[in-house]
Amino acid sequence: MRKQFYHFIESGQIHHKKSKYYDYGMIAIILLSIVPLLFKQQTPLLSSIDTLTFLVFVVDYLCRWLTADFILKRGRMSFLLYPFSLMAILDLLCILPYISLLNNSFKLLKVIRMIRALRVIKLFRYSKNIRIITNVLKHQKDALLIVGVLATSYIFVSALILFNIEPDTFPSFFDAIYWATISLTTVGYGDIYATSILGKTMTMISALVGIAIVALPAGIITAGYMEEIAKTQNGSQERT
Amino acid sequence: MRKQFYHFIESGQIHHKKSKYYDYGMIAIILLSIVPLLFKQQTPLLSSIDTLTFLVFVVDYLCRWLTADFILKRGRMSFLLYPFSLMAILDLLCILPYISLLNNSFKLLKVIRMIRALRVIKLFRYSKNIRIITNVLKHQKDALLIVGVLATSYIFVSALILFNIEPDTFPSFFDAIYWATISLTTVGYGDIYATSILGKTMTMISALVGIAIVALPAGIITAGYMEEIAKTQNGSQERT
Amino acid sequence: MRKQFYHFIESGQIHHKKSKYYDYGMIAIILLSIVPLLFKQQTPLLSSIDTLTFLVFVVDYLCRWLTADFILKRGRMSFLLYPFSLMAILDLLCILPYISLLNNSFKLLKVIRMIRALRVIKLFRYSKNIRIITNVLKHQKDALLIVGVLATSYIFVSALILFNIEPDTFPSFFDAIYWATISLTTVGYGDIYATSILGKTMTMISALVGIAIVALPAGIITAGYMEEIAKTQNGSQERT
Amino acid sequence: MRKQFYHFIESGQIHHKKSKYYDYGMIAIILLSIVPLLFKQQTPLLSSIDTLTFLVFVVDYLCRWLTADFILKRGRMSFLLYPFSLMAILDLLCILPYISLLNNSFKLLKVIRMIRALRVIKLFRYSKNIRIITNVLKHQKDALLIVGVLATSYIFVSALILFNIEPDTFPSFFDAIYWATISLTTVGYGDIYATSILGKTMTMISALVGIAIVALPAGIITAGYMEEIAKTQNGSQERT
Repeated sequence: MRKQFYHFIESGQIHHKKSKYYDYGMIAIILLSIVPLLFKQQTPLLSSIDTLTFLVFVVDYLCRWLTADFILKRGRMSFLLYPFSLMAILDLLCILPYISLLNNSFKLLKVIRMIRALRVIKLFRYSKNIRIITNVLKHQKDALLIVGVLATSYIFVSALILFNIEPDTFPSFFDAIYWATISLTTVGYGDIYATSILGKTMTMISALVGIAIVALPAGIITAGYMEEIAKTQNGSQERT
Repeated sequence: MRKQFYHFIESGQIHHKKSKYYDYGMIAIILLSIVPLLFKQQTPLLSSIDTLTFLVFVVDYLCRWLTADFILKRGRMSFLLYPFSLMAILDLLCILPYISLLNNSFKLLKVIRMIRALRVIKLFRYSKNIRIITNVLKHQKDALLIVGVLATSYIFVSALILFNIEPDTFPSFFDAIYWATISLTTVGYGDIYATSILGKTMTMISALVGIAIVALPAGIITAGYMEEIAKTQNGSQERT
Repeated sequence: MRKQFYHFIESGQIHHKKSKYYDYGMIAIILLSIVPLLFKQQTPLLSSIDTLTFLVFVVDYLCRWLTADFILKRGRMSFLLYPFSLMAILDLLCILPYISLLNNSFKLLKVIRMIRALRVIKLFRYSKNIRIITNVLKHQKDALLIVGVLATSYIFVSALILFNIEPDTFPSFFDAIYWATISLTTVGYGDIYATSILGKTMTMISALVGIAIVALPAGIITAGYMEEIAKTQNGSQERT
Repeated sequence: MRKQFYHFIESGQIHHKKSKYYDYGMIAIILLSIVPLLFKQQTPLLSSIDTLTFLVFVVDYLCRWLTADFILKRGRMSFLLYPFSLMAILDLLCILPYISLLNNSFKLLKVIRMIRALRVIKLFRYSKNIRIITNVLKHQKDALLIVGVLATSYIFVSALILFNIEPDTFPSFFDAIYWATISLTTVGYGDIYATSILGKTMTMISALVGIAIVALPAGIITAGYMEEIAKTQNGSQERT
């Protein structure tokens, strides 16, 4: 009986109809548990939603612990090991914010619940387009990593130079990093910017070269996407 | 005689010369009816333009109703059904703003008239380039939809995190969504932005990942466009 | 003798060595004549540069008029027709600002002189890369025109909607157009933006769709560029 | 013995294990020497880091000078010539800032030390992806140069026009160049922008055309990247 219960709550069991209903229910509860995060004042309704979703998560956590031997397949040891597995820690982190009620930023641990939602979304991965996009990211992983390192280094060096040219503009080095990131992504809020001639000159050089660096990941993703499409088409042509 | 009249007012009848003149006339009236929207003060001239175009739209609406049996091809029932067809409702919405004269934002229903203008533009769809662009959008529909969902989710999660990190910066969750959209599209007005260290750090991470997400639709459209060109060329080569 | 003189001043005569020197001299004079535009106060030095370049342009204008029969190849009539040819009018417009000394914005006619500089740059057009870039722009002319019309229409409709939603934000319709252009190009100065809930919502929708429209010309240019490269390579392969 | 010492300190000697350790040590010292640049107040700890790294650089400089005959391979003359070689001058510039202690912006010479770090990074150049990216930049060098010249000219002309239309907005021509760069890279801080009707109109035209120019380098890099991938794949296919 516990085995059937395990199959019921375990997500990603496509052929098990009731399991699917449980998954959909959990997604609804996860989304519901996020609703109180969208408001500043905690009304009685929002508080009761918080309590309700908290209780569901506690029950879900306990149920998974009770079927730990089916998840980890390690016999009796499973019950001892389960609370230290990654999924169990994440689940615990989702529950903690309600108990503690410490402060606002701590509330954000609830966002971790979304990872759970992502687990369920795995069901949709058989779609052709999602597969192509994930394939692009997977095959171009190395190139994107290098471009990422390049962009990060560029931001760091730009920030370092500006911070030493205009120490009055930037209260700390963190602000220089913030300025460089907001400038090179071309967001440009205008809350912080260089004011001296030398600082403005460096800003211009940074921005002009920054465009080329921003063009690199776009180029890599485009190239990867087209390669993937070509592969898919060649594959289907060879079969015919 | 009513049949000929129907052919006269019905748009998209390419081989019917007079119908084309009627279409061009209607586009001119539609554009004329938008002119009063471009000014704040309503001068006597603008008011008379409003009245004139209103009358033309009323006459056009009645004429279409009178020839409803040719449009819907349902016999006498057509006269009863026509006011509930999509085009008739849109036409009515275009006329209503003048009658009501309620408030400014209501005036915007006049913009719906542009949909009518679009209907006429259908005539130009036989151009090769427009066909390629619409083909790209049609064939990449699924991919663009997924990227759209991805971007929207990303904006929502960014807004959710920032809203809970810095409740003082954002009066409501709507403002957090507004901030996230303006930041990730790299518009960055600078009317709202994070001020705390944690908020700025999350802004930076959001912006850096946001670029990659923005690069995705560009990549998909480029890839789709090139595929479409290749197809068109292969098609013409095979024929020769 | 006048014929030789014509060959001397006429730009674009590659095989004529002295003509090239005259061209380089004229570019230097054109660039020199722009120098006074870079300063606010007119010092004696800048004034004398202005007078000097003015005199050179007058002499150049007269010389070209005197050799008009070689330029237009219409016999004596050429001398009468020349002042009304496009190049002569442009040359005259370059000279006028000095004579009039009317106001600042009138000074800008001097910028027209740069068109003359462009004429000389024609000499460099035999470079392979410039040819590819101009070919891309030429072959994708229709597509870019359609995208341009699309973008302009989109800016107009966005401005129209926002202007009627928030008449208090925008002093005139021109400001709404300015806002839409600065927002959709993602420049986002932050000098003008929507403040109402409805206005902000429309801003978000505008910005999100605007990205896709901005991605279109980039896609078209990229696709055109790759096609052009492929053509150049196929051409050289077929020859071998 | 001095020869072995030379092999020990010379960077880029892959097969020499101890040399690698020396390289890694130098990178650590270089990164350490940058730490004091990240803070405004000089604490005793930061001052001692400054002194320590200064001493290491002085020792490194002297060691390289002592083995100059192995570096330049010019016999005894090497010891005289070495201080005037590019690497020696760069090394000296890295040491100078500590001695002078003149002002803040002079501190930036330390950034030159990073060039030394880059020399070591050469070791990683055998990675496939970095080779592709550098190949793209190398093969598209001419095209990128032309686009660079085009973008710079465009910025200059935009600045020139705006500076003469609105002399009150821009204190000097430098500010106009700054405005044009920040606008056309779509950063748009909002610290400087046109306020007159004519100025705003020119801003709009500049921004709209600027997008197309920004799309060019992205297109070139994408096209170059895809060509490079295709070449790599064809190469490996021909071998099989």
